[in-house]
Amino acid sequence: MIRRAAISVIARPALSFHSRPMAGYTLSPEPRNPLLTENVRGVDQNGEPLEISVTVERPLTLFLNDQEIVTMMTIGDYPDCLAVGFLLNQNMLSQDDKLTGIDYDEELDVVVVRTERATDYEQKLKKKTRTSGCAVGTVFGDVMERFDEIKLNPKARFHTSWLYTLAKKINNTPSLYLEAGAIHGCVLCERTRPLIYMEDVGRHNAVDKIAGYMFLHNISPIGKLFYTTGRLTSEMVIKAVQMEIPILISRSGFTAWGVELARKANLTLIGRARGKRFVALAGLDRIVFDSDPDSVKDEPRHLQRKAAQSEDA
Amino acid sequence: MIRRAAISVIARPALSFHSRPMAGYTLSPEPRNPLLTENVRGVDQNGEPLEISVTVERPLTLFLNDQEIVTMMTIGDYPDCLAVGFLLNQNMLSQDDKLTGIDYDEELDVVVVRTERATDYEQKLKKKTRTSGCAVGTVFGDVMERFDEIKLNPKARFHTSWLYTLAKKINNTPSLYLEAGAIHGCVLCERTRPLIYMEDVGRHNAVDKIAGYMFLHNISPIGKLFYTTGRLTSEMVIKAVQMEIPILISRSGFTAWGVELARKANLTLIGRARGKRFVALAGLDRIVFDSDPDSVKDEPRHLQRKAAQSEDA
Repeated sequence: MIRRAAISVIARPALSFHSRPMAGYTLSPEPRNPLLTENVRGVDQNGEPLEISVTVERPLTLFLNDQEIVTMMTIGDYPDCLAVGFLLNQNMLSQDDKLTGIDYDEELDVVVVRTERATDYEQKLKKKTRTSGCAVGTVFGDVMERFDEIKLNPKARFHTSWLYTLAKKINNTPSLYLEAGAIHGCVLCERTRPLIYMEDVGRHNAVDKIAGYMFLHNISPIGKLFYTTGRLTSEMVIKAVQMEIPILISRSGFTAWGVELARKANLTLIGRARGKRFVALAGLDRIVFDSDPDSVKDEPRHLQRKAAQSEDA
Repeated sequence: MIRRAAISVIARPALSFHSRPMAGYTLSPEPRNPLLTENVRGVDQNGEPLEISVTVERPLTLFLNDQEIVTMMTIGDYPDCLAVGFLLNQNMLSQDDKLTGIDYDEELDVVVVRTERATDYEQKLKKKTRTSGCAVGTVFGDVMERFDEIKLNPKARFHTSWLYTLAKKINNTPSLYLEAGAIHGCVLCERTRPLIYMEDVGRHNAVDKIAGYMFLHNISPIGKLFYTTGRLTSEMVIKAVQMEIPILISRSGFTAWGVELARKANLTLIGRARGKRFVALAGLDRIVFDSDPDSVKDEPRHLQRKAAQSEDA
């Protein structure tokens, strides 16, 4: 098991607002957190004044020890999880690393992750923009090295009946998406139970926040599924494999490279999952067809819209 | 007017496949281009074999003269436009720059933009990941410097009747989205006419390709509108302002910072545009309410789904 030093997080108000999760969840969205949305005034199609709620978007600059790594755009609710998850998914932290602290400065929008091990990604950061093998540069290249080593559990199983129960629960969970829109959602699940539901405006921040949460709370990927509202691109597939979660499900579609990488890693890849329908394109051996899709109702229209609106992470 | 040397593009097959645009368009999507989609086999919810069409996703590494800038994930249909548009929107090229060539190497997935002016963004590239003011680092910081200087035309107008005609035309245009999904779309328009409709898997590549096309073909932003399927985030607003297009319309929602930046730049920002409805949150003086929304039909359901699925660029 993972062992690490105690974490000291300097809380921002957003952190202190965290409310109790919804029943069944370890962590659920907080659409009522006043720091995550703003009311703005404008006009509608008739020129009539109106006020709507929109999601916030804030910069967060990440340091690993004394080195500045990157600035991300985020809703800012879990800077500690986002920081750690980003570093893990970029292979700048490993599951064996011991953290000595996470400091968050609200005024400067800065989060600093401190490790027992001395770190220096000077070369990696330079190479990121200067010599790139493919995709997002050398950072991505390094990710791919580990990608080839990871063996996803071939004995993990996915029952199609779980999907229908999960989708219904997730769709009915109050969220920033339902409140203000323009946001992505990712959910770590176990069988029919959604456990950790993160949302974010930033591409892939939601998944990095889950990776960070799992690390900080010693949550194992064994027996887990990953559900996302976003597209199954190469980047999404790589992150799921990095997290060693063998089953990735999305309401949205696929890219060809996403499918190719999933097959290479033997990741079970299920997309276009809406109502009774889905398409599985990789890791088919893990799927147990234990329900009659014809007995599943189509989603009510407002949920179809909700679901569809979350396409294209 | 912009003046520049002739461009020599080493065509890849994808380029040579470009078909005639749809009537009315200068450039329209090419859902039948065999290089932009792949057929993949899998199973459906009943475990029955099926074959679906998915969008490709390829790396493209960009050099400006002899300096490697970045690697992007793209469908690969207009590497020349993507390269030039990216550089323009990052302020690494200006409208005054003279290009001496664009070389595209299909096997290496590399595009090289050559300029008369000597360029060196060594410091900028380093700072990108090492000292970032906000958002996406110093590149973004520099973009913001120019952002503050740009004066968008206050006399430009937007008639609400145009929106309804435009949306109908765009929704009925054959596209990769309708063919394979999991893709973003952006359209440069003039009054009720969609002119240039680009799609891409990569975030913001579609908008960069339009910026590059405008530069390479001397298309002025005067009198233009920009329509996107993606969310109105800070990045999207900044790119529209960089392109000096005063009106930005989306089917999707807003982020709070996107709204704030649009107000600062006096950009007309219209979102959640579906069927008869829309919300305008900035630059309201440009809007002419010349149609009765109640006379506009709601979109047919399959278009609502299509539209909604393109949320969250």
